[in-house]
Amino acid sequence: MGLPKKVTIYEVGPREGFQIEDQLLATEDKVKFVNKINETGLTSIEVTSFVNPKLVPNMADAEEFLAKISRNPNVDYRTVYLNVKGLKRAIEEDVKIDGVISVSASNIFAKRNTNKYADELIATIPQWVEAYQQIGIPADQLAVMATFGCNFEGEITLDQVMSTLRKGKALLEENGETLRKLKLCDTMGWANPEQIKRTIYAIQNEWPEIDIMLHLHDTRGLGIANAYSALQEGITEFESAIGGLGGCPFAAVKGAAGNIATEDLVFLCENLGIETGVNLGKLLECVELAESIVGRSLPGHLRSGGLLLSKTV
Amino acid sequence: MGLPKKVTIYEVGPREGFQIEDQLLATEDKVKFVNKINETGLTSIEVTSFVNPKLVPNMADAEEFLAKISRNPNVDYRTVYLNVKGLKRAIEEDVKIDGVISVSASNIFAKRNTNKYADELIATIPQWVEAYQQIGIPADQLAVMATFGCNFEGEITLDQVMSTLRKGKALLEENGETLRKLKLCDTMGWANPEQIKRTIYAIQNEWPEIDIMLHLHDTRGLGIANAYSALQEGITEFESAIGGLGGCPFAAVKGAAGNIATEDLVFLCENLGIETGVNLGKLLECVELAESIVGRSLPGHLRSGGLLLSKTV
Repeated sequence: MGLPKKVTIYEVGPREGFQIEDQLLATEDKVKFVNKINETGLTSIEVTSFVNPKLVPNMADAEEFLAKISRNPNVDYRTVYLNVKGLKRAIEEDVKIDGVISVSASNIFAKRNTNKYADELIATIPQWVEAYQQIGIPADQLAVMATFGCNFEGEITLDQVMSTLRKGKALLEENGETLRKLKLCDTMGWANPEQIKRTIYAIQNEWPEIDIMLHLHDTRGLGIANAYSALQEGITEFESAIGGLGGCPFAAVKGAAGNIATEDLVFLCENLGIETGVNLGKLLECVELAESIVGRSLPGHLRSGGLLLSKTV
Repeated sequence: MGLPKKVTIYEVGPREGFQIEDQLLATEDKVKFVNKINETGLTSIEVTSFVNPKLVPNMADAEEFLAKISRNPNVDYRTVYLNVKGLKRAIEEDVKIDGVISVSASNIFAKRNTNKYADELIATIPQWVEAYQQIGIPADQLAVMATFGCNFEGEITLDQVMSTLRKGKALLEENGETLRKLKLCDTMGWANPEQIKRTIYAIQNEWPEIDIMLHLHDTRGLGIANAYSALQEGITEFESAIGGLGGCPFAAVKGAAGNIATEDLVFLCENLGIETGVNLGKLLECVELAESIVGRSLPGHLRSGGLLLSKTV
């Protein structure tokens, strides 16, 4: 495959980034951040999550926050929920709901993160399908946590990944749904560029009709190389976080890089001649605001490195 | 080309890293650092430079420092010199001397960095050849500064690069030498992965017999993706700095990433199944030591991200 002409970048910083902050962030600051992202040209922002406020205090204000943000008609506002109760909170709000169900390629990560082993998590598919059907949304997406490796379980083989996908896909079909999109998550930053290619090949070989989105982390410095590898295979959908917000709670040292930085990904794409629709100058203003909100420098490179002189990107 | 089986990584941290530190570093600390690098399996260390001590105070102790470091018989100790006077200091020492001559693809960068315009710099080739010939070393390498772009001049076209190379190669030949190796330096972090490929193609197409080495910077976050792109083209020689030491004096913000981090590059290679001969655990000990010497966290990712569980790399 050659490089694509155009990609879509899904911003996840306000949710995945802010959720791990120890300090309680002001609702107003988070609103200001999303309002500024509205100006960048990004067309999707994961803004908050409907989760247990005791476990994730920074997401406790989800409803209040959603009532306060400005809406850009060209932007989809997305949220995260980990159970049907959370989904029911989400459908009360003016947010975009995808029929996505989370599974895990790592058994131990699944247990630690959801208190269910990987197969138990897959076994929740029918109840998710039912919940989505009740609101008229097809359950057609699987998000796969720890697709490329796990800090608790170690290496995750391609066989494990494919087996997880086959089980999930079959269970969707048994419940009258069709798998149309896979989000492959490198939750703990294990992927390398050749593994990215092998995994994409295997999936496209078995199910050429399924779209693949990548959610990459830069924990060990290979995030942007992994994105480049995926672009070489024609992948056109990526999740990333402004500034590389998020850190990685599973890394060796607190403060390790989290999600790949949106501005570094946009910079990569624009330099490769791939259209993103994102204004890098506006995006760097968002990085600056994010740094002032969390009170520290973020791991993304472009803000400190600076834009290129006399280039349009 | 496929990925190579084996690469050689040339460590430049003690020189390119320490030279830009504002604080004066203790000779003993620098000695300790090099002695620790001796244990990693790296086979080349650029340890110091013979330059004006007023301009680069951290390199003023070059001779004293060289007398104090331990020597590993498997390691080449290299130095930098910017003029024939510096070369004459180097040949008095027990260091490896390559017949390398620096040129610049950017006219303005050449002037700022060497006080000579690009063509004036190329015009120094005959006197370098003569100086090398006097010590019996063939002048067979060109190092090209600002090959991929310049913070002062802007975009550097491939035509500019090829024109610089043709002039330099011709002048070497007029003086009885043969160009065997090119070191392409992304001095200010402008390269993108496709530009790396285009540049390598053009050079290999015109001179298939010339070896190419890459000196990459991670100023704008594409350093490791650029290394991956070069590996895909079969490139087997890279310069990098432990921890990403060095910063980038030309970046928008002081403290921007400098050279690509040796540990991230080794991690990339080993995960791609490419042999480096470097022990990553030992290398991370060097990063820790470097951070304690300069008194701050360094931009390399692997130390904070952590090694992979249950993998040998």
